[in-house]
Amino acid sequence: MKYRRSPQYFIGVDVGGTKIEAVVVNMGLTEAAHSRVPVETENAGRVTESIALAIQNVLDEVQPGPQELCGIGLGIPGLVNDGKVHLAVNLNMDDYPLAAILSKRFGAPVALENDVRLAALGAYGYVQLQTQCQNMAYLSIGTGISAGLILNGQLYRGANGMAGEIGHVIIQPGGPVCSCGAHGCLESVASGHAIADTAREAVAAGRVSSLSACPLITTQDVFEAAEKQDPLALEIVGRVGRYLSQAIQWLVMGYDVERVVLGGGVTHTAEVFMPAVQAGLEQIRSESELAERMLPLEKVVLMPGDYNAGLWGAVRLARTIK
Amino acid sequence: MKYRRSPQYFIGVDVGGTKIEAVVVNMGLTEAAHSRVPVETENAGRVTESIALAIQNVLDEVQPGPQELCGIGLGIPGLVNDGKVHLAVNLNMDDYPLAAILSKRFGAPVALENDVRLAALGAYGYVQLQTQCQNMAYLSIGTGISAGLILNGQLYRGANGMAGEIGHVIIQPGGPVCSCGAHGCLESVASGHAIADTAREAVAAGRVSSLSACPLITTQDVFEAAEKQDPLALEIVGRVGRYLSQAIQWLVMGYDVERVVLGGGVTHTAEVFMPAVQAGLEQIRSESELAERMLPLEKVVLMPGDYNAGLWGAVRLARTIK
Repeated sequence: MKYRRSPQYFIGVDVGGTKIEAVVVNMGLTEAAHSRVPVETENAGRVTESIALAIQNVLDEVQPGPQELCGIGLGIPGLVNDGKVHLAVNLNMDDYPLAAILSKRFGAPVALENDVRLAALGAYGYVQLQTQCQNMAYLSIGTGISAGLILNGQLYRGANGMAGEIGHVIIQPGGPVCSCGAHGCLESVASGHAIADTAREAVAAGRVSSLSACPLITTQDVFEAAEKQDPLALEIVGRVGRYLSQAIQWLVMGYDVERVVLGGGVTHTAEVFMPAVQAGLEQIRSESELAERMLPLEKVVLMPGDYNAGLWGAVRLARTIK
Repeated sequence: MKYRRSPQYFIGVDVGGTKIEAVVVNMGLTEAAHSRVPVETENAGRVTESIALAIQNVLDEVQPGPQELCGIGLGIPGLVNDGKVHLAVNLNMDDYPLAAILSKRFGAPVALENDVRLAALGAYGYVQLQTQCQNMAYLSIGTGISAGLILNGQLYRGANGMAGEIGHVIIQPGGPVCSCGAHGCLESVASGHAIADTAREAVAAGRVSSLSACPLITTQDVFEAAEKQDPLALEIVGRVGRYLSQAIQWLVMGYDVERVVLGGGVTHTAEVFMPAVQAGLEQIRSESELAERMLPLEKVVLMPGDYNAGLWGAVRLARTIK
């Protein structure tokens, strides 16, 4: 008599500010179905319904039997502890037992994690395809800035699940006011928000730039202008590269990681972004032997723009549910 | 018939730039003997003889029988990997198999670690007497600056045993030249060295200060002058407090630790030092709710000046030898 093992499925979900992606994979991590739905952010209940819809979409395609759905991993922009979501301001969730709600609804265990921590886990999967490494930092540069850490081969959360929240460390004392209220946070000088704001202010102050023709001036506009050698845009992108290279040096010296992976919306214009970061790193390297040894070129890796690290991190989280 | 277990002894050794301390303890970590000898730094062999003398001193007092000396833990200012000491410039050691040499000599297993990493382990022992905590950073501020990390209850070394070497991250781009060659490293603006240098330069440039009466101006002189409200000294100490509070914020946000323990020579004038650091932290706290929540007063702890964290970290390391 042959023993036939029933299939096992895992679901990964990435909750963003505007859309939700879900994927279902089999034991071999092959994608069996994929769904993308907009997120309705009016209140926590509506967000939950959006998430449930994304999950139901992929389940409908695969139709697993009882016991075949083994786990759901989910990343969300907020502070996550004990299956609850805290301080997810844009999603109107605070002290919200999302894991329990979804687990009851789908009859499977659910694990939650902060979206950037999970993207770090996804990035680790990507890096491991290229190199054996046990320690890695993932630096997410988008509207905001945050990092996630893989230490000794494991996601490191810290005491409150906040490890890597370096967007709000002071990097330029007395600098621009940040959304958190402080002056000169990393996020206030190097995020997508900061890039657009700086350009708008400079243009409003009368700086001559091709950007003055843009109706609103977005981060993307600044990168495009930099690509066309606009001096103001080049100056802004160059400064961002210097601040980010300082942050990268902190991550390398502080954690002694083998790789720093850069991801997030701001990195997508790689042709302009990466040279700016590399120029900042080159400046740091050129001054000291120690920096040169600790910051070799290959240590800083760009995440491909079409790899959804958060989603694949969620799948990896789902696989670890016991 | 009674079963009588033979005693077990462990030795901890702290190698500094000028002296070596050794202690032998029993299973209950009670100190059985203590030795302090000067270190002869002419070459690696002489340093090793100094270390061996310190160990022999405590062994002579206790005279353990065969099998009773269970392990020797040793902290040394240098990069340590696989029982070898690298880049210990002041001790003339590089690629030096110190563990094997001492192990052969004393017939016991020997474990080495960088001195600041070990001091972190010792500091963790101290903190655990007061609070259950799993994640802790130890920031050593002496002639140089470095940190050691306890993450998830374990010493975190990183890929190369360099985790926590934050003395050489750039904190003030374009700032003073550091010993490493770079400009504006944390060490170049906030170490004992930096404090004395800044004062000397200011006095040489004609700044009016009681420090001009000091023959050389040491870090200690600056702290004493600050205690007597000398404006230049207060300014220097205040600035150091601000830089260190930035570093502390990085450690807290980056690692999400429950405690940051401050130690090292510069912290010994606590009456002047701690208010300067707390003023810097207060400034950071005052600007943002997040900072206020993440940097509460009790999170930053001063190591008592008479607790040799490095030595007790070495004892803890010896106890972990299998």
